[in-house]
Amino acid sequence: MTSGEDSLIARYFRPLATDLGAFGLGDDAAVLNALGDDVVVTTDAIVEGVHFLSGDPPETLARKALRVNLSDLAAKGATPAGFVLTLALRSADEAWLASFARGLGEDIGLFGCPLLGGDTVSTPGPLMISITAFGRVPTGKMVRRSNAKPGDRIVVTGTIGDAALGLDILKGGAVATALADDVAAKEMLVGRYRVPQPRNALAKAVRDYAHAAMDVSDGLAGDLAKLCAASGVSAVIDTQSMPLSAAAAALLGRGTVGIEALVAGGDDYEILCTVPEAAFEAFAQAAGLAGVAVTSIGTVIAGTSPPRFLDGQGRDIALLRLSYSHF
Amino acid sequence: MTSGEDSLIARYFRPLATDLGAFGLGDDAAVLNALGDDVVVTTDAIVEGVHFLSGDPPETLARKALRVNLSDLAAKGATPAGFVLTLALRSADEAWLASFARGLGEDIGLFGCPLLGGDTVSTPGPLMISITAFGRVPTGKMVRRSNAKPGDRIVVTGTIGDAALGLDILKGGAVATALADDVAAKEMLVGRYRVPQPRNALAKAVRDYAHAAMDVSDGLAGDLAKLCAASGVSAVIDTQSMPLSAAAAALLGRGTVGIEALVAGGDDYEILCTVPEAAFEAFAQAAGLAGVAVTSIGTVIAGTSPPRFLDGQGRDIALLRLSYSHF
Repeated sequence: MTSGEDSLIARYFRPLATDLGAFGLGDDAAVLNALGDDVVVTTDAIVEGVHFLSGDPPETLARKALRVNLSDLAAKGATPAGFVLTLALRSADEAWLASFARGLGEDIGLFGCPLLGGDTVSTPGPLMISITAFGRVPTGKMVRRSNAKPGDRIVVTGTIGDAALGLDILKGGAVATALADDVAAKEMLVGRYRVPQPRNALAKAVRDYAHAAMDVSDGLAGDLAKLCAASGVSAVIDTQSMPLSAAAAALLGRGTVGIEALVAGGDDYEILCTVPEAAFEAFAQAAGLAGVAVTSIGTVIAGTSPPRFLDGQGRDIALLRLSYSHF
Repeated sequence: MTSGEDSLIARYFRPLATDLGAFGLGDDAAVLNALGDDVVVTTDAIVEGVHFLSGDPPETLARKALRVNLSDLAAKGATPAGFVLTLALRSADEAWLASFARGLGEDIGLFGCPLLGGDTVSTPGPLMISITAFGRVPTGKMVRRSNAKPGDRIVVTGTIGDAALGLDILKGGAVATALADDVAAKEMLVGRYRVPQPRNALAKAVRDYAHAAMDVSDGLAGDLAKLCAASGVSAVIDTQSMPLSAAAAALLGRGTVGIEALVAGGDDYEILCTVPEAAFEAFAQAAGLAGVAVTSIGTVIAGTSPPRFLDGQGRDIALLRLSYSHF
C-alpha cells in the first residue's frame, strides 16, 4: 500500500536521487562516503513571501533553493557532493511538483550535486524549501571567513547589485518604471534575482589561493563587514572599480539608484574573497581558465573599524543599511 | 555592526556549537571530519499544527525535533556526529528562544550530537523546525530497510502506541476522558508524545546483529509494511506479544482503544528491526547491556502480501489505516 506522500516522492524525486548512497530514497537515511576528505555542510532555507514571491515559477524556486547552497560550497572551496531537501507544502499540486522537480533535476545535472534524501511535510502556511548541502574538501582545506590578512586584495566574482534591481522590478518599484521599455534589461535583472549563478567553477582556485572567502547573499557591504569582523581586520573598497552589469551601470548613471543600494542589495550569490597580493595573478589566471570573471575592488587593512566604501574622489560613501536581517 | 539575527544566534545557539568543525557558527559552512567512516545523513522537519501543537513548550519542541532525527540514526546503526538546524519563526521571542535553546542544549549533551550550523528565517506562517543530522558508521555498514530475510525475528524496542495516546489526551479525546483522574498516566503518555526516547544506545547492537531496521515514526503497521516492501518479504505479527506500557494495556483492557489504534498510531520513535534467529540471543544480550528493552513480536515470512497482525486466537486484525500520510 502506497500513501499519497510516498507516490509523489517516487514520481518526482526518486529520479533525482542518482547517487548510490541515496538508495533511491527508499530508506530513512542516506550515506555519504567521504573518501578521506572533510565533508563541508551548509544549510539555507527560502520562505514564500520572504525570500521569494508567491508568483515565482516553481522551476526557478527549486533552482534558487539549491543554488544558494551551492554558492556557499563554492565560496568554501568545496566540490558539491549531494543534498537533502525539506519541502513544506500546503497541498500536493502535481503540476507544481512536476515543474519543481524538473528545475531541480536540471541543476543536479549541471552542478553534479545529487539528491540524497529529504522530508515532505504539509503546512497550513507559506511554502518553504530548506536544503542542506554537502561538499568535499581535502582535510583541513575549507576556506574560512576568518583568515583575511592586511594587504590582501578583496575580490568579487561576476557583477554586484543585479538581483536587488531584479527584485525591485518584480515589486514594481523605481527600477521597473525606469526600464519600462527595456525588456531585455528587465529580464536579465529578474533572472539574476530568480536564478543565481553560483561560482562552483571557481572553488578550486578559491581553495588554492584565497586567504578568506564567503558568498555574498545578504549584500556585499554587510557580508564584507562580517568577513572583516571574523578576521579581525578592516577594508577599503573603491566603489569605482565595483563590477556592474551594463543595466546596473546605466541605472546608476541615470540616478535611478545609488551605488549604496547596489552594495547593500542582497541575493548576489557571488564569491567575496581575499587573495594575497603575491598570489593574485595566479588566482586571476585560474579564474580565467574556469570561465569566472573576478574583479579586485579593494584592500584588506589592519584595524577593526567598519569597512570603508570610497567614491571616485576618495570620499566615504554613507551606507544607511549594510544588509538584510530577518529580525 | 551586529544585526538582530546575528545577536540572537550568538546568544542562544553559539553555546550549543561545541564541535570544532562548527567554528562557533562564525562561518557559512561547517566541517564534518568523517575519520574514514561513512557519514549517514537524515532529515526530518516538524511543523506547528501538523507535528506539534501551538501550546507545546519550546523546550520539548527542540528536543523532539532533534530526537526524531537521532532516532533515524539509531535505527541505521549510526553514532551521532552533529546536526544543522533551520528555524522558521514568526518573531524573535527571546523567552521562547531561550527555552528552545535550553532544551536543545540538554539533548546535545545527552546524545553527544553538537550543533554544526543552521539558518534562521522569518515566516508569516506556522513555526517550523527542520533538522538534518549526521552519524558515522564503518564504511558500508549502515543498516538498510531492505535486507530483511524470511525467518528473521521482528523486534521492537520500548513500548508501542503511547505517543498516539498522549496526542489524544492533548486533543481532549476519549483517552483524556478515560484517564481524567489518573494524572501520572496522562503525564507519562503526553511525555511520550512530546519527548521521544530515541534508542541510540542500541545503535551498535543493531549494526552488529540486525538484517534490516528503521525507526517507527508513522505507526508500526505502516512502517513494517514499508520495511517488508523494501525487502521483498512479508511478516506475521502476534499482537499479544506487542510491548505495551501499563497505561496503554489498561486502556486496551477497558476497551477505550483497540490494538489496531496502537499499532497504527504514530510518533513512537522506537526501533523496528529484523534479527536472524541464530543471532537473537546475542542481540538481546547486547540490548540488555545497553539498557534498552527489546521484544520479539513476530517473524519475517516469504511473500509479498501485506504483513498480518494476529490476535490471541490467531485471527487477522483488520487495520483501517496503517499510518499517517501528509497528502
